[in-house]
Amino acid sequence: MGLIVQKYGGTSVANPDRIKKVAERIVKRKHEGDQVVAVVSALGNTTDELIELSREITDNPPKREYDMLVSTGEQVSVALLAMAINELGEEVISLTGSQVGIITDDLHSKAQILKIDSSRLEKELSKDKIVVVAGFQGVTINNDITTLGRGGSDTTAVALATKLDAEVCEIYTDVDGIYTADPRTVEAASKLKGISYDEMLELANLGAQVLQPRSVEFAKNYGIKLAVRSSFNHKPGTYVKEVGKLEKDRVVTGVACSTDDIKISLIGVPDRPGIAYQIFEALAEASINVDMIIQNVHRGEVNDITFTIDDENLNEAKALLDKLQNELAIENIVYDSEVAKVSIVGAGMVTNPGVAAEMFEALASQDINIEMISTSEIKVSCLINKSDADKAVQAIHDSFDLGNVEEASDGNV
Amino acid sequence: MGLIVQKYGGTSVANPDRIKKVAERIVKRKHEGDQVVAVVSALGNTTDELIELSREITDNPPKREYDMLVSTGEQVSVALLAMAINELGEEVISLTGSQVGIITDDLHSKAQILKIDSSRLEKELSKDKIVVVAGFQGVTINNDITTLGRGGSDTTAVALATKLDAEVCEIYTDVDGIYTADPRTVEAASKLKGISYDEMLELANLGAQVLQPRSVEFAKNYGIKLAVRSSFNHKPGTYVKEVGKLEKDRVVTGVACSTDDIKISLIGVPDRPGIAYQIFEALAEASINVDMIIQNVHRGEVNDITFTIDDENLNEAKALLDKLQNELAIENIVYDSEVAKVSIVGAGMVTNPGVAAEMFEALASQDINIEMISTSEIKVSCLINKSDADKAVQAIHDSFDLGNVEEASDGNV
Repeated sequence: MGLIVQKYGGTSVANPDRIKKVAERIVKRKHEGDQVVAVVSALGNTTDELIELSREITDNPPKREYDMLVSTGEQVSVALLAMAINELGEEVISLTGSQVGIITDDLHSKAQILKIDSSRLEKELSKDKIVVVAGFQGVTINNDITTLGRGGSDTTAVALATKLDAEVCEIYTDVDGIYTADPRTVEAASKLKGISYDEMLELANLGAQVLQPRSVEFAKNYGIKLAVRSSFNHKPGTYVKEVGKLEKDRVVTGVACSTDDIKISLIGVPDRPGIAYQIFEALAEASINVDMIIQNVHRGEVNDITFTIDDENLNEAKALLDKLQNELAIENIVYDSEVAKVSIVGAGMVTNPGVAAEMFEALASQDINIEMISTSEIKVSCLINKSDADKAVQAIHDSFDLGNVEEASDGNV
Repeated sequence: MGLIVQKYGGTSVANPDRIKKVAERIVKRKHEGDQVVAVVSALGNTTDELIELSREITDNPPKREYDMLVSTGEQVSVALLAMAINELGEEVISLTGSQVGIITDDLHSKAQILKIDSSRLEKELSKDKIVVVAGFQGVTINNDITTLGRGGSDTTAVALATKLDAEVCEIYTDVDGIYTADPRTVEAASKLKGISYDEMLELANLGAQVLQPRSVEFAKNYGIKLAVRSSFNHKPGTYVKEVGKLEKDRVVTGVACSTDDIKISLIGVPDRPGIAYQIFEALAEASINVDMIIQNVHRGEVNDITFTIDDENLNEAKALLDKLQNELAIENIVYDSEVAKVSIVGAGMVTNPGVAAEMFEALASQDINIEMISTSEIKVSCLINKSDADKAVQAIHDSFDLGNVEEASDGNV
């Protein structure tokens, strides 16, 4: 008998009928002899509806109260799923983030898990109960409710899998695995049998919304095998695990595209030592992640600095940069949201020179202008105009012949 | 500077606009120099919508999971109200039942408060914050979420007022006080300046839905002055307090009507000592309150026993009585939901004989048949056909000339 942690996303529990289906899936697994901990997201659009409600009151809710509000979404889900499982005759209990002992820091709306006191969870498992856990949430040591940021339920699931030393952490979603590109954009995209943690981490960071990046990092650090599967069918999904021979041989594993970036150009920044530090330190202190950065050549006494951030941090960044503009005598600040970041990811890239050049060539062949570039050992990203995004992904996918990656035939990789 | 506990019902916070209005009222009070603890119910129909959602999954949800589900309603309210208060520039924090330290027994869906650990609440008040508290909910000592039953937010408010030794507990609702009868039924109903705890307790128990009975009991036991007021205007409301000269002089204070009763007739109950005890003990053990009881004269070896219960306990009672019917060889059980209970309440009744007779005469004058009667020192209740309810209330109200009770002119009684 093994212990399995499953995570069901919002579309998997969008309505009572789907909740019943999820309950059947969990109970079936239990009957096969496994212990099941199911982590659940909020029903369908609940979180968006709650945020909309708060917008009718204020555009700047205190983040603590924001977390108080949106965390109710998952609490509704776990109660309903527990009812559905109980209706099938199985012993079950639902637990909130607080009850399951997920202790986080107090960085509301994007808190990080500090530790898990799993005594309650283990007590319930020892009574042979199915445990349904509210994803996305925790509490500070002062018992204030926190949320873990976009896709935080993935992190909840992986963290619990780690704490409980689970056999596998299954991520159920509305797609049946990880593809070489978003199948909605690229018809020929193929499903991957397996992918390494590092590749998945890059893809997740670069816009593939199947898994929260932090959850992949967590899984990598603790060696938790992830399985990405669809809750709507029983097809084998994609395993995320240590890099194997298969992954090492693939130069490019997938193409990702993110349209959540904002390009910010600081025009006419005085050319003084330490000034870039001052700017990026201020952003870092406000927990605003800066992604790509370029600094243009001198124009006399001043430089231009351009960088990208996630659009969810735009308002905060604006307030901060307005202040810095005065203090540092920056001539002008330009914000551009009409950008997209297309990226290729592959564990074998590091040993294959010329991969980046091939990507640039694919973009050039479509007359797509590259505004910024950043690279790591296993990825190349290009910032381009948002309107070119789909065309770019398609061209890159074709260029690396990713439509012919072997389709997963079973779940054993 | 005083400490005020306010409670806002669901209609007072039905939508973002009303929430903003409530926020203004609270902030105004704070600016006048009072410390404010605001207890809030779920937005408008939220609780009903959550229950409807659960019904799509099961008719018999485990009560623990039911509480997990419906308690989210108040959590949404407190977060939104705290956001609205913050938007007005005041320091504020919202607290769930768990965070505010309301410890209850584990009788889910109708839990009773065992104690309040108010250390967090007092800490926040000492920082001069407005504290917004989720009504209707608490936690067991095992940190399982409980709810306090219909109207439980009133109890939360009174319990906190007691614990904090508040000057007054103001109950804001959609009516502006306690009336001699429901103004929707009786046009001539007059608003009362003041009413005694005992009278209010009877009225609340008898169908006046303005206050939860348990909250009145609590207020009575601890001498907390209640003020019932409308959140839609600034009219003086009705004070609920120790009986004064005014109340003692009034023979009848009000007429109440409840249509939530079910009449259950056990036909042909064997005439054995202890059999009634067996029946009512079983109901009591299941926490089902029995209200009126009559036992008919013998028909040979058997009796008929008729009693009423609240319709929310119907399913449970049916299951239990079906079992008893077999065990005790009861001939037949008849359920009748087409009944209404009309009642008169008045602290002066006990010293005025003939009050009950006048009530019966008022009903007889309208050809209304009385099925059951029960009395206490300060009330008389009659069970009648549901279709006669409005007519009965009107006739009794006229008969005791309650339309001419002095209207409240200010809040100082």
